[in-house]
Amino acid sequence: MKRFTLADIDNLERRYRAQMINCISGIKSVNLIGTKDKNGQTNLAIFNSVIHLGSNPPLLGYIQRPTTVERHTYENIVSTEYYTINAVTEELSSQAHQTAARYEKNESEFVETSIESEYKDNFFAPFVKSSPLQIGLKLEDIIPIPANNTKLIIGKVHELYIQPNLVADDGHLKLDESTIVGGIGLDTYLNLKKHERYSYAKPDETLKKL
Amino acid sequence: MKRFTLADIDNLERRYRAQMINCISGIKSVNLIGTKDKNGQTNLAIFNSVIHLGSNPPLLGYIQRPTTVERHTYENIVSTEYYTINAVTEELSSQAHQTAARYEKNESEFVETSIESEYKDNFFAPFVKSSPLQIGLKLEDIIPIPANNTKLIIGKVHELYIQPNLVADDGHLKLDESTIVGGIGLDTYLNLKKHERYSYAKPDETLKKL
Repeated sequence: MKRFTLADIDNLERRYRAQMINCISGIKSVNLIGTKDKNGQTNLAIFNSVIHLGSNPPLLGYIQRPTTVERHTYENIVSTEYYTINAVTEELSSQAHQTAARYEKNESEFVETSIESEYKDNFFAPFVKSSPLQIGLKLEDIIPIPANNTKLIIGKVHELYIQPNLVADDGHLKLDESTIVGGIGLDTYLNLKKHERYSYAKPDETLKKL
Repeated sequence: MKRFTLADIDNLERRYRAQMINCISGIKSVNLIGTKDKNGQTNLAIFNSVIHLGSNPPLLGYIQRPTTVERHTYENIVSTEYYTINAVTEELSSQAHQTAARYEKNESEFVETSIESEYKDNFFAPFVKSSPLQIGLKLEDIIPIPANNTKLIIGKVHELYIQPNLVADDGHLKLDESTIVGGIGLDTYLNLKKHERYSYAKPDETLKKL
């Protein structure tokens, strides 16, 4: 095994370190967050830090990097309280990656990257029309992380749209039967193939494959 | 698209809701967290909430559910400050899933699920010997999440061990060339296959495939 101590990591060239440390948490979700400001200007940005926080109430979080430069997604969420989280597919991956470019505040990534928006059921923020898993959220809390000046942005799920064929009888979502991608690090996208689904683990029972 | 409003979600049967909402964030990392208490009793538990927080300093977080029942991992981290995060592979997946069973405090999941531990370089907590990506962390901060009484546990990377063949020239880790798995929801494990790697996005440049 190749070993890196904390001192080794601290001494790495900045981009090498960012590439490597962004990979070590393992596989990531890849989502597009859609927002709209009070003047109707839309924004769309790729995030690989969306995380499940709880199901009752249904809460999702994501990590917002330091807001020392313009962060349009964050500004729009703070001022309007509504945003959407949309799963990225193979078909969307290159356009989704391109949303990370530093467009100006008066440019919408929906336009610049040719990703079609969708409004429905009177929800304020724009969804990504072609995503098979679209979530409409309301801001619940913003939690500062002093260790590196990031923030955990917490939203409650108010609207959930999912391709019907992905919903299993017990509520499980068969995302592996869609073209939804996962990610590694900063720039790598993955196809998914089901390995195994296991039964609920109990101390003295053998797991079943579902 | 099948639509669930917040009211629909709140009215779902508890297990159905947990299955579904655990799936909506997208693809998850799957890691085993290894700890040891002050009496030398080891613990190993599967987590699908490990997340990248920053690379300088190198910080990882994970979500700790409410500590109303015994949570051995959390107790050990609080009392000893050291823990390990180890990527789960296809070969480890059934044993890793089994660590979620409610073993007693005096039972070690390393023993009960036949996962071999490893100690090295004087690090206090046990690693998972067969994992191709092992991380030794020191507790940095514990951040309460009032919205649902969970906690964000933050650790700084002090030791990182990685199979040498997975490290690309620029620091990127080719986890897709290992048997490391991703996850969906509570119980489903995924094989990974590289879809694309893209160049850094800039406003007026076409992405290159790397």
